[in-house]
Amino acid sequence: MPDPLLVEVLRGLLVESQHRGAVAVADSDGSLVCALGDVTVPVFPRSAVKALQALLLVESGAADRYGFGDEELALACASHSGEPGHVAGVTHMLTAAGLDTGALACGAHWPINQAAAFALAKTGAPSALHNNCSGKHAGFLCLACAMGIDHSGYWRPEHPVQREVRAVLEDMTGAALGPEQCAVDGCSVPPWAIPLQNLARAFAKFGSGRGLSPERAAAAARLRKACAGKPWNVAGTGRFCTEIMKLFGARVFVKTGAEGVYCGALPGQGLGIAVKCDDGAGRAAEAIMAALIARFLPLEAGERTALTRFQHPVLRNWNGVDVGALRVTDALVY
Amino acid sequence: MPDPLLVEVLRGLLVESQHRGAVAVADSDGSLVCALGDVTVPVFPRSAVKALQALLLVESGAADRYGFGDEELALACASHSGEPGHVAGVTHMLTAAGLDTGALACGAHWPINQAAAFALAKTGAPSALHNNCSGKHAGFLCLACAMGIDHSGYWRPEHPVQREVRAVLEDMTGAALGPEQCAVDGCSVPPWAIPLQNLARAFAKFGSGRGLSPERAAAAARLRKACAGKPWNVAGTGRFCTEIMKLFGARVFVKTGAEGVYCGALPGQGLGIAVKCDDGAGRAAEAIMAALIARFLPLEAGERTALTRFQHPVLRNWNGVDVGALRVTDALVY
Repeated sequence: MPDPLLVEVLRGLLVESQHRGAVAVADSDGSLVCALGDVTVPVFPRSAVKALQALLLVESGAADRYGFGDEELALACASHSGEPGHVAGVTHMLTAAGLDTGALACGAHWPINQAAAFALAKTGAPSALHNNCSGKHAGFLCLACAMGIDHSGYWRPEHPVQREVRAVLEDMTGAALGPEQCAVDGCSVPPWAIPLQNLARAFAKFGSGRGLSPERAAAAARLRKACAGKPWNVAGTGRFCTEIMKLFGARVFVKTGAEGVYCGALPGQGLGIAVKCDDGAGRAAEAIMAALIARFLPLEAGERTALTRFQHPVLRNWNGVDVGALRVTDALVY
Repeated sequence: MPDPLLVEVLRGLLVESQHRGAVAVADSDGSLVCALGDVTVPVFPRSAVKALQALLLVESGAADRYGFGDEELALACASHSGEPGHVAGVTHMLTAAGLDTGALACGAHWPINQAAAFALAKTGAPSALHNNCSGKHAGFLCLACAMGIDHSGYWRPEHPVQREVRAVLEDMTGAALGPEQCAVDGCSVPPWAIPLQNLARAFAKFGSGRGLSPERAAAAARLRKACAGKPWNVAGTGRFCTEIMKLFGARVFVKTGAEGVYCGALPGQGLGIAVKCDDGAGRAAEAIMAALIARFLPLEAGERTALTRFQHPVLRNWNGVDVGALRVTDALVY
């Protein structure tokens, strides 16, 4: 059975495009308070689990050893836009561990931020530092150094860093992660396919600390504080994750992943959220996540208004004319 | 009933994302040789009907008056990449009619082509000439001049240019186009929502000339010759429309539209094609169109091989590693 329609794209009064998807909202015991579509089929969360992948950076003592504060920890959880501040922060992380750009195995791409890309193009070309995943990779490298092991090949599934990270993902999600759930991510680390219901539970645990060891709960709290305090570091200028966490601070954790994934936590409600837009559309995943925040987080009137532009974004053309909008379906609202 | 699954996006061995859509392939009488999904619901073809919108540029005598050859006529049918050659060509069209950039109402955006955008950003900002629709708009302006009417407001639905263009679309598609099928396009002209089965029939007529007046059939043939002869002008470096028409010449006409639309014609087979990916994904619409060409156009072995990279494109990550592929479903192949 197909997943339900969750988002419609209107042009004028007509539906021009539509997005199906699945949603799981769960507590730390795995009880589902909302399940739309198939939440049992494994999906690749991609970058949406970077905060879970960063837990060991704190738990291992690496973050303390290298003196990392909110800026660096938020970058370790980030899909950043490659703006100068992001690049400087990741450079600082590498330097703290005695490493340089050459250690990064994520590959290079132009900054997501257009102004940053244009500025860079005037004088040069992107390096691995500009890759949106460079903070995560710097975190992996620092973890390897803190573990006292050779960091070369840190991105391979069989490297101790990735084996340890996989064990954290299994612990957090309760899903068994074997070779049949593995592939290769855009930045070459192994992504693991995990059902949405397990991802939602993992983020409920991440947000509330419930069901975690004291050390892991403390690491999760520290990462959440870092992202809430430095939301620009988690994404970048004008991006959804940044704007939402600027708006709600520590009350909401959200993180995007490629191909229409969003994960998040509402710590005060003890809830975790996992979203997959079937067709991989980020625009729909953002609207869905905004709708879920509006549904499950108690909001003041001003906050509800502020959330509207994410839940029902207006589409404007090259002359600035309103030509349509995104609209979440009733399946998400009730 | 949802439209069928037409394209799967694989990461490793797992399906990461999937695209549903509808397809109509018809002859000039409107007989459907292939219909997948709902081909009766109106969809906005967006830029996929630019060649139909350009028919009057030829029929009116404007193209002859201004001395337009294949380059200019292909630009009138184009969603170009804003590369220097495109900008020069559109400038030439405007100049021929005694106009300049200020007459264009399409709005400005950065060139689709990344290298062109980076080069432009070094010294300036985009103008309406860089808008992918500027050739179509120049065509509308030239049509207004040839009609001997005021070109101001040429983009409004009630302007004679758009009224005449609407009449051509009604004639070609057999669909009645009223205010309830109208909205505002990205470049501010009226887009008209038309069922895929009507669009497919229109392109069968466009490709074969059957069912058209001699004047319209001649105009269609001239536009097809222009696009086949100057496919770079129709899109740009590395783009699907350009590469496919380079590969097949006059045997295939294809044109992309925003939000996952593709229209095309196989003149030798007397067939027209219309595709809408429900979620608006261009990557899926391209794979679908490639699969339809492979199914309905007799191919030599080398051509079939050359088409594979469009039908089943390999996905590579930032390190150049194969991480997955697009795969069209059996619904399209049989």
